Amino acid sequence: MSRHKYAIGLDYGTESGRAVLVDVSDGREVATAVHPYGDGVIDEVLPGTDIELPHDFALQNPADYIEVLRVTIPAVLQEAGVDAEDVIGLGTDFTACTMLPIDEAGTPLCQKAEWRDNPYAWIKLWKHHAAQPEANRLNEIAEAREEGWLPRYGGKISSEWFFPKIWETLNKAPEVYQAADRFIEAADWIVLQMTGQERRNSCTAGYKAIWHKRDGYPGDEFFAALDPRLRDVVDTKLSGEIYALGQRAGGLTPEMAELTGLRPGTAVSVGNVDAHVSVPAATVVEPGRMVIIMGTSNCHMVLGPEERMVPGMCGYVEDGIIPGFQGYEAGQSCVGDHFAWFVKNCAPVAYHSEAEAQGIDLHQLLEDKAAQQMPGEHGLLALDWWNGNRSVLVDVDLTGMLLGATLATRAEDIYRALIEATAYGTRMIIDTFQEHGVAVDEIVACGGLPERNKLLMQIYADVTGREIRISASQQTPALGSAMFGAVAAGRAAGGYDSPFEAAGQMARLKDEVYTPIAAHKAVYDEIYAEYVRLHDYFGRGENDVMKRLKALKARVQVDS
Amino acid sequence: MSRHKYAIGLDYGTESGRAVLVDVSDGREVATAVHPYGDGVIDEVLPGTDIELPHDFALQNPADYIEVLRVTIPAVLQEAGVDAEDVIGLGTDFTACTMLPIDEAGTPLCQKAEWRDNPYAWIKLWKHHAAQPEANRLNEIAEAREEGWLPRYGGKISSEWFFPKIWETLNKAPEVYQAADRFIEAADWIVLQMTGQERRNSCTAGYKAIWHKRDGYPGDEFFAALDPRLRDVVDTKLSGEIYALGQRAGGLTPEMAELTGLRPGTAVSVGNVDAHVSVPAATVVEPGRMVIIMGTSNCHMVLGPEERMVPGMCGYVEDGIIPGFQGYEAGQSCVGDHFAWFVKNCAPVAYHSEAEAQGIDLHQLLEDKAAQQMPGEHGLLALDWWNGNRSVLVDVDLTGMLLGATLATRAEDIYRALIEATAYGTRMIIDTFQEHGVAVDEIVACGGLPERNKLLMQIYADVTGREIRISASQQTPALGSAMFGAVAAGRAAGGYDSPFEAAGQMARLKDEVYTPIAAHKAVYDEIYAEYVRLHDYFGRGENDVMKRLKALKARVQVDS
Repeated sequence: MSRHKYAIGLDYGTESGRAVLVDVSDGREVATAVHPYGDGVIDEVLPGTDIELPHDFALQNPADYIEVLRVTIPAVLQEAGVDAEDVIGLGTDFTACTMLPIDEAGTPLCQKAEWRDNPYAWIKLWKHHAAQPEANRLNEIAEAREEGWLPRYGGKISSEWFFPKIWETLNKAPEVYQAADRFIEAADWIVLQMTGQERRNSCTAGYKAIWHKRDGYPGDEFFAALDPRLRDVVDTKLSGEIYALGQRAGGLTPEMAELTGLRPGTAVSVGNVDAHVSVPAATVVEPGRMVIIMGTSNCHMVLGPEERMVPGMCGYVEDGIIPGFQGYEAGQSCVGDHFAWFVKNCAPVAYHSEAEAQGIDLHQLLEDKAAQQMPGEHGLLALDWWNGNRSVLVDVDLTGMLLGATLATRAEDIYRALIEATAYGTRMIIDTFQEHGVAVDEIVACGGLPERNKLLMQIYADVTGREIRISASQQTPALGSAMFGAVAAGRAAGGYDSPFEAAGQMARLKDEVYTPIAAHKAVYDEIYAEYVRLHDYFGRGENDVMKRLKALKARVQVDS
Repeated sequence: MSRHKYAIGLDYGTESGRAVLVDVSDGREVATAVHPYGDGVIDEVLPGTDIELPHDFALQNPADYIEVLRVTIPAVLQEAGVDAEDVIGLGTDFTACTMLPIDEAGTPLCQKAEWRDNPYAWIKLWKHHAAQPEANRLNEIAEAREEGWLPRYGGKISSEWFFPKIWETLNKAPEVYQAADRFIEAADWIVLQMTGQERRNSCTAGYKAIWHKRDGYPGDEFFAALDPRLRDVVDTKLSGEIYALGQRAGGLTPEMAELTGLRPGTAVSVGNVDAHVSVPAATVVEPGRMVIIMGTSNCHMVLGPEERMVPGMCGYVEDGIIPGFQGYEAGQSCVGDHFAWFVKNCAPVAYHSEAEAQGIDLHQLLEDKAAQQMPGEHGLLALDWWNGNRSVLVDVDLTGMLLGATLATRAEDIYRALIEATAYGTRMIIDTFQEHGVAVDEIVACGGLPERNKLLMQIYADVTGREIRISASQQTPALGSAMFGAVAAGRAAGGYDSPFEAAGQMARLKDEVYTPIAAHKAVYDEIYAEYVRLHDYFGRGENDVMKRLKALKARVQVDS
C-alpha cells in the first residue's frame, strides 16, 4: 500500500485565512489552522499612518495574506505529522472581488514607500463600497448602450466588482491608476506570489470582471464611454489570458517553499472564489443539483449544460464553477442577517431569561418555539428584503415587509415568518431558473446555517418541494480548494485528472436528508402564491412605495 | 354669596365604579372615590356556584353596582365635607352595551333564587363575545333584506350589542328569555334603581339597540326573519319611550337616599355611556370639534347639525351625544394596545436595561428615542390593523402590516411607525367625515394616552393638520355625568337648564395646544398618500391576502 497523499486547501476569508490538510484518497480533513489578518479589515485608519478613511472604505494589507501561508501551512503539517513530500498540491480560494494595483513585478503598490500613504494603493476588500457612484454611472451607460453582457448580471454591475473599483481609483487617485502596471484580483495575486505565474482564473474574471469565454471583456468603446482614459484599460491594466478552474497555475517557488516548508514545485491550482469552490466540495459537478451556501446571505449556484439567459442572476459564467459547464449564480442579500437583526432588535426580554434558564441561545429558543407550529398557523407573511433584493429583482432599494400581525402575534411567529420568507425567496430563484431552462432537481446546502438550524432546513425542503442534503464538511471552501490542488497535481502525482474525479473521491454529504412533507408543501404552495403576488406588486413597479419611502428618508436626512 | 352647589358624577367602568363630587359653578372636582366590583368581570365561574363559563363569556353582578353607590357617595361627601343639602343632582355613565334581563319590578333575574344558577340570567358585560354567531346571522339577514338602518352602523352590528345578546339568550336559554319581563341596559337599570323610573336613554338605544329618533327600532318583520319568536321582542321585552340625554329621569327614592346619605328627590339624569358623556366634559357641545378618547383603542365623536350617511362609522344617533344634534361615532380597534403589544413582544433586552438605568418605563424610553427623529426618517409605514379595522373599513379580518424595514431598523423606529399608523387611521376617519359633509376643524383629546405621550399628540396634530387640545379633567366621564346631573337639577335648583350652559361653566381644557408643524405636515401628507393606497389595496378587495392568510390559519389550526 502506497503512502497517503495530501493536498492543502487555503481559504482566504474576510478576517482570517485558513489552511486545511486533506487526504487526497478520501477527502478526510486531517488538520486545520486559522490565522487572523494582523490588520484585519482596514476601515478606519490606514496602517502605520493617521490617515482616516471614509466610512464606505474597506481595505486589506497583502502582507497579511503571505503571513497566513507562513503560519498555517507549517502548522497543519506539524499537527498531522505529514511529510512535505506527501503534499502534492495546493489550491486557494478568496473573497471576491477583492483587488489591488501592482507594479510590473507583481508587488502591491501599497508595499512601495512612495505609495504607502495612499489608500487607493491598498487592497480594496469585496465590501469596499466607495465605488457606488462609479457603479451607478457604469450601469446607466451600459443600459443606454444596450450592452449585451448586462443581462448576464441581472442588469446590474455591483459597486463591489472589478471595474467600478478601478474607475474609482482613476477618479479619486489618477496617479495610482497611472502608476499601476496592472490591477488584479487577490485570488490571482496570491497564486502569482506562490508560483511566480500570473494565471487569472475564469471564476473571478467571469463573475466580477464581466469576462465571457467567447466574447472576452466589454469593448474599448464601452470603456471609452465611461471615461476616455479607460478606453485601453483591458489592454494596459489587466493581463490577457484566462485559465479555467482546476488548471495548474504553476509550481511553488523556492522562496515560497522555504516560507511554508513545502517542496519547491508543489502544484498550485489557479485561484478560485470561496463560494464557487464549495460547489464540487458539496459533491456537485453536474447540472440539476443546486448548491446553496447559507450564512448571513444565501448564494445559489447551479450548473447548466448550455448558456441560458436567466433574469435576475448575479451572473453566469462558462467554466466559472466547473470546467465545461455554465456556472449560474443567484443570491439573496439577507438570510442569517435577518435572524440576527430580529434577535438583536426584537426579541423580548422574557425570552432572554427563558433562554438563559434553559442554557441555550436566543436563536435556539426561538427555533424551538417556532418548530411547534404548523405551516400557516401564525398567519404571517414577510417579504425578505431587509437588505434589498438581489435575485431575481436586483433592486437594493426594496425593503422588508411583514403582514398578518395581530395582538396575538408572538416573537417566534415573526421569527418563523422570516425564515419562511427567505425560503420563498429561494423558491422564486429556483422557479426562475426552471422557467428559463436551467433544471434544479435537488438541493445541497452548506455554510453556517444548515448545521445549526433544522427547522430552517425542513422549511426550505417544504417550500421548495425538493430534497435537501448537507455537505459533510464544515469547511467546504477549504476542502474544495484542496480538491483543486489535487487536480492541479494530476493523477500521475497521486491526485486527480479532473474535478469530477476529485469530487467523486474527496467530497461527501451527511447522511441526513430533509424531505418535503406533502401536507406542509400544500400549505406553503398557497402562501407562496401570496408571496409571489406581493413580490411582484412591490417589486415590479406596480407600487413603488418602498422606493418612495427610501427616497423620502434620504431627503429628510439631508434636510435635517 | 350663596353656598356652593354640587353634583355627583358616577362612572361605571369595567372593573370598578367611581364617584366624583363636582362644584357646579366651575366644574372643580372636589372629591373622588373608587370602589372595585366584588365579583369584577365574571369570566370563569358563576359566583356562589361551581358552574364554569365558556371562554367568550363576560358577566357582572348587579349587586356590585349598588355597592358602588353605597360606598362611594358617602365617601366623597365626607372627604369634601359637603352637606347632602348642597348636592343638587346625580348623573351616571356606564360601559355599553352592558345589559341584563329583569322581572316586572326591575329585579335582575340573577338575583332571584330560581335563576341564580343560570349564566344567562346575569348581566352580560360589553365584552361578552358569545353572541358572535347571532351577530353574524343578524348581519347576513339585514344585508339580504337591505335594511335601511344597517349603513348607519357601517354595515355591521357588533356581537357586543343589544339584540345579538338578547338573541343569544333566546337560543341558549329560552327559559330565561321567557322569564324576562324586559331586557335593559345597565345604564338604564341603575337609573331605574335610583329613581324607580324606567327612562331609557337615547345614547345606548341609538348606538347599541338600532334605535332611531324618527324610525324607532327595526320592524317586526326583520325580527321575525331572525327568529319567529323574536317578532314582538321590541313590544314585549323593551319599554317604549326613549329620553334624550340631559333629561331628568326622576328623583332619588327614599331607599336610595338612605343608602347614599343624599336627600330623597335629588335629581337624577337619564343614563349615558362613558365615551359619549365625555364629549361635553371636553367642552364640545357644537359641530366641528371632534373628541377622541384615546386609550387601548380610539373612539372618535363629532356632532353634526343634520343627518349624513358617513361610511364605516360605529353609528350616528340623533340626540345620541348632545340633544338637538346628530352624534357621530367612529373608532379604531387598536391604539394603546398596539404599543403595549410592541413593548411586550418586541422591545429588545438592551432597552429594558437602559430604561431601568434611567428609571423610566419602556414606553417612555421608546418615546424619547422616537422623538429624536424627523417625520419620514425611519422609512417605515404600517397599517394599524393589529386588531382589525373598525372605521372606515369595518373589517375584523384585516391584520397588521409593516413595510420599509432594513437591517438598520431599530425598535424605536417601529414604535414610531405604529404611532404614526394610528394617526393615519384617524386622518382617514376625519377625511371620510369631511368628504361626507361632517366638518372636523379641531380635535379635543381625552383618555389615558394624551396625558402621557406628547410625541403621539404632536404626531396626531402633524398628520391630521389640526390643532389638538386636551381635556383638563383626568376623569372626563365622571365629570360629564356630574354635568348631566346638574342639568337634571335645572337652573332653579342651582344647576343648569341645558348641557350647553353646563359645558360653558363646568368643562375646561388644558392650556397646552398641539399645533401642526408645517414642515412635518408636508412630509406626512406624502406618507399618508402611501398609507391610503395600501389601505385601499389591502382593505377594499384589491388583494385580500390578509383574509386568505387568516382563513388558512383557522383551517390549519382545525386540521392539526
